[in-house]
Amino acid sequence: MATSFTVSEIAERVGGTVRGQSNVRIYGVASLEAAGAHEVSWITHPKYAAVLAECNAGAVLAPSDYGETPMVAILCPLVEAAVGKVINMFAPPIPSPPVGVHPSSIVSESARIGDEVAVGPHVVIEDGVVVGDRTILHGGVHLGCGVRVGSDCRIWDHVVIGHECVLLDRVVLHPSVVIGGDGYGYFQDGGRHHKIHHSGTVRIEADVEIGAGSCVDRAKFGVTVVGEGTKIDNLVQVGHNAIIGKHCLLVAHSSMAGSSRLENSTVIAAYSGVREHCVVGEGSVVLVHTGVASDVPAGQVVSGSPAQVHSRRLRGLAATDRLPNWIRRVKELEKRIKRLECPTNDS
Amino acid sequence: MATSFTVSEIAERVGGTVRGQSNVRIYGVASLEAAGAHEVSWITHPKYAAVLAECNAGAVLAPSDYGETPMVAILCPLVEAAVGKVINMFAPPIPSPPVGVHPSSIVSESARIGDEVAVGPHVVIEDGVVVGDRTILHGGVHLGCGVRVGSDCRIWDHVVIGHECVLLDRVVLHPSVVIGGDGYGYFQDGGRHHKIHHSGTVRIEADVEIGAGSCVDRAKFGVTVVGEGTKIDNLVQVGHNAIIGKHCLLVAHSSMAGSSRLENSTVIAAYSGVREHCVVGEGSVVLVHTGVASDVPAGQVVSGSPAQVHSRRLRGLAATDRLPNWIRRVKELEKRIKRLECPTNDS
Amino acid sequence: MATSFTVSEIAERVGGTVRGQSNVRIYGVASLEAAGAHEVSWITHPKYAAVLAECNAGAVLAPSDYGETPMVAILCPLVEAAVGKVINMFAPPIPSPPVGVHPSSIVSESARIGDEVAVGPHVVIEDGVVVGDRTILHGGVHLGCGVRVGSDCRIWDHVVIGHECVLLDRVVLHPSVVIGGDGYGYFQDGGRHHKIHHSGTVRIEADVEIGAGSCVDRAKFGVTVVGEGTKIDNLVQVGHNAIIGKHCLLVAHSSMAGSSRLENSTVIAAYSGVREHCVVGEGSVVLVHTGVASDVPAGQVVSGSPAQVHSRRLRGLAATDRLPNWIRRVKELEKRIKRLECPTNDS
Repeated sequence: MATSFTVSEIAERVGGTVRGQSNVRIYGVASLEAAGAHEVSWITHPKYAAVLAECNAGAVLAPSDYGETPMVAILCPLVEAAVGKVINMFAPPIPSPPVGVHPSSIVSESARIGDEVAVGPHVVIEDGVVVGDRTILHGGVHLGCGVRVGSDCRIWDHVVIGHECVLLDRVVLHPSVVIGGDGYGYFQDGGRHHKIHHSGTVRIEADVEIGAGSCVDRAKFGVTVVGEGTKIDNLVQVGHNAIIGKHCLLVAHSSMAGSSRLENSTVIAAYSGVREHCVVGEGSVVLVHTGVASDVPAGQVVSGSPAQVHSRRLRGLAATDRLPNWIRRVKELEKRIKRLECPTNDS
Repeated sequence: MATSFTVSEIAERVGGTVRGQSNVRIYGVASLEAAGAHEVSWITHPKYAAVLAECNAGAVLAPSDYGETPMVAILCPLVEAAVGKVINMFAPPIPSPPVGVHPSSIVSESARIGDEVAVGPHVVIEDGVVVGDRTILHGGVHLGCGVRVGSDCRIWDHVVIGHECVLLDRVVLHPSVVIGGDGYGYFQDGGRHHKIHHSGTVRIEADVEIGAGSCVDRAKFGVTVVGEGTKIDNLVQVGHNAIIGKHCLLVAHSSMAGSSRLENSTVIAAYSGVREHCVVGEGSVVLVHTGVASDVPAGQVVSGSPAQVHSRRLRGLAATDRLPNWIRRVKELEKRIKRLECPTNDS
Repeated sequence: MATSFTVSEIAERVGGTVRGQSNVRIYGVASLEAAGAHEVSWITHPKYAAVLAECNAGAVLAPSDYGETPMVAILCPLVEAAVGKVINMFAPPIPSPPVGVHPSSIVSESARIGDEVAVGPHVVIEDGVVVGDRTILHGGVHLGCGVRVGSDCRIWDHVVIGHECVLLDRVVLHPSVVIGGDGYGYFQDGGRHHKIHHSGTVRIEADVEIGAGSCVDRAKFGVTVVGEGTKIDNLVQVGHNAIIGKHCLLVAHSSMAGSSRLENSTVIAAYSGVREHCVVGEGSVVLVHTGVASDVPAGQVVSGSPAQVHSRRLRGLAATDRLPNWIRRVKELEKRIKRLECPTNDS
């Protein structure tokens, strides 16, 4: 039996108000082009009005001040958030291993597994591990000695969490994430690099999500931290003793070097890295291909490698682009001044 | 017993013509420096003629118009393709698990496994999976619910394919590839990022190869596509709803953001990314460290972050390199003009 | 019972000399701020003297010429190396599987396993593998046919080593490393890319360490080499037939294209790549976001994409940053010269 909601139920869930018939029943969500009579769609801007005019959706999410619509409208102060919420209302359940421990998995007798935990096949749970209630461990997950995982986490296939690392509640780790590998720390002696033992750990706070193949290294001493609500994309590297604040975004292939720090609500775009010991201030945005080589104050937008204020870098890039023209003008000036200096040589 | 072919058999396979004795028997392929009397080597350009003169190979692949050679020549219109074909003729078989299912593997009763399929140890095949004939699953591969894998695929160790994703025929996935992790999609509400459920899937078309550790995210709705014959290197990221055309090349550490698109036969070099919703036109080449931030027309070569036409960027870089010189010349002009303006101050 | 050493024992181990009471007993190592009376700390520079004055450590490692300290000093010619050694003296043991083979693991009868080897759960060891004495294989490690692993290696969870690849002694591979995936090599024929079989292997020399998720591809022919003592960070890509010298450093997200080469003691920073067939000379440093597109002589520092000598690139960047100013000055010159050329038009 398909999930369905009335328009008024949806409006209530997203904090919107209905304009039109509130008892229309909705069975799904789709784009303006694809939506049918029993689906809800959305419009974010009047520039899509022509598409909306042709749309067959049974209802539409629209900004609070949006004009006439050909179907029932759910007017919302924040349409994008409303769309996200509606998508989640209709989301099918994610296939998961059943509650209990798969017989092929190996669970230490000293591990403490919460209620309604699901442990898939070929999982390894070592001594002293604690797993919170309702957490789901997909196939091949390895939890090292003393690892603590909170409640309502979902740990996808082949994730490795090294000894003593900690995850708080509602953490999602995608396949092949590695938490708690050794940091990249060596000392030089006699022309050789010698490994420094890493005895620290990692703490992943509540509501963090980390994408496939990303790595968070354990601290040399103390703890590497990924703060509450931060979302990390695929193939991201977080070095030893990095401290990432709350509600940050780290896009694919970004990286945090050892002991670097992000304050809350910062964004690091793809291929951007923060150098050892550097700090990116609250709310700052580090654009793509940026090398942060010194501290960035709060509220800045930076780009370039080494990083500079983005607007200033854009001015430099624009000027560079016109350089051949300026060089021509300088050459011309040289000729003209020569003529002024030696009028008799003028040819 | 070693694989061997006569020179004429090789010529036939590569579409070349023999110049000299066609019944020489060849047991392998090697570089000009290393080849012995029973091996075939290759020369792509007359600049290597001196090396060829010292070469002991029993036969040599050479361009159709190549001059005298000290040994039998197989003249080919496309030497590089011919070399590839000859390497493959002599390639030893790749070690693979035997046909059948290893007893340590877990296969759902509802899965449909084709003829002559080989399933290595510690594999997990969930409900409703379909695997085509002669496909090889190495150790530790996980196929989520409803996954469909075509015929003659080779899926290396520890690959994870998420629920409902689809692979067509002859796909090769190297170790630790992740297909169908959730896309990086959130909505903001109350200063926090909230996950948007991803109910779409991934389709990997025929003859695609994906390198170790690369990730292809599932679509939010609909499908993320990697088109027929496209070859993806290691540690590449493909975001949700990206559409990659046919016969593209994506080099190591490149990335496609959400809903970005590559038309057929494009090349994306290392550390280059395509921004959300941007399109790279057919046959275009995106050079290393490029950030594609707006659509690229067909047949272009672009570089820089943000991307611009490569030849134009090179002109700007060259001009920048000579900037200190131009600055000197401007300073000089200022002095000279001052002298002209105030001739009495001239010292 | 806690590990402890006297100050004189520590001094002996690090090659330092004691100033003060040499029989103080030390139970650990900590930062200046955190150290207590039974711990040793370190100071690298007099600028931290104020922190040292407040420090409660029982002893301090300091440069040989360092002045007065409030506690016993161990004076060292190289403080950083001494700190590394002391950290390692107090390092707790790393949790490891017990010696022997876990019953869930699958070991070919033709494999030869050395003395005191520890094989964790769900490991797969295929035909003809050789594992040296005291090597530790964590859970889920897969060793393909004919792989040889030296003595005293530590291979973390889910590492995959492809058939015939070789590791010498004391190699450390972090989770999800992939050694010996196929190189990225194709030939074009009829508008399609065709795979070239890779029959070469990989050799990882003694004392190499490779970070989580990194990949080293097998050679087309011959061997891809990572030289003795080289340390590779997380998510690094090493292409087919690359030759990496001894004691190099490759930072996270760096990459070596096919047949590229690093001479000894080079450093490749994050997001930097070396193009096919290019060589980076001994002791050179490739800074972040660099694209090495031609050979780099020994002892250079390079940056930019394409790479140039760093000091020269910095001069160009600085000049670019002042470009808007120079453009103003050129415009001003044009006005002034116009006035000189046509004095009557002066307004």
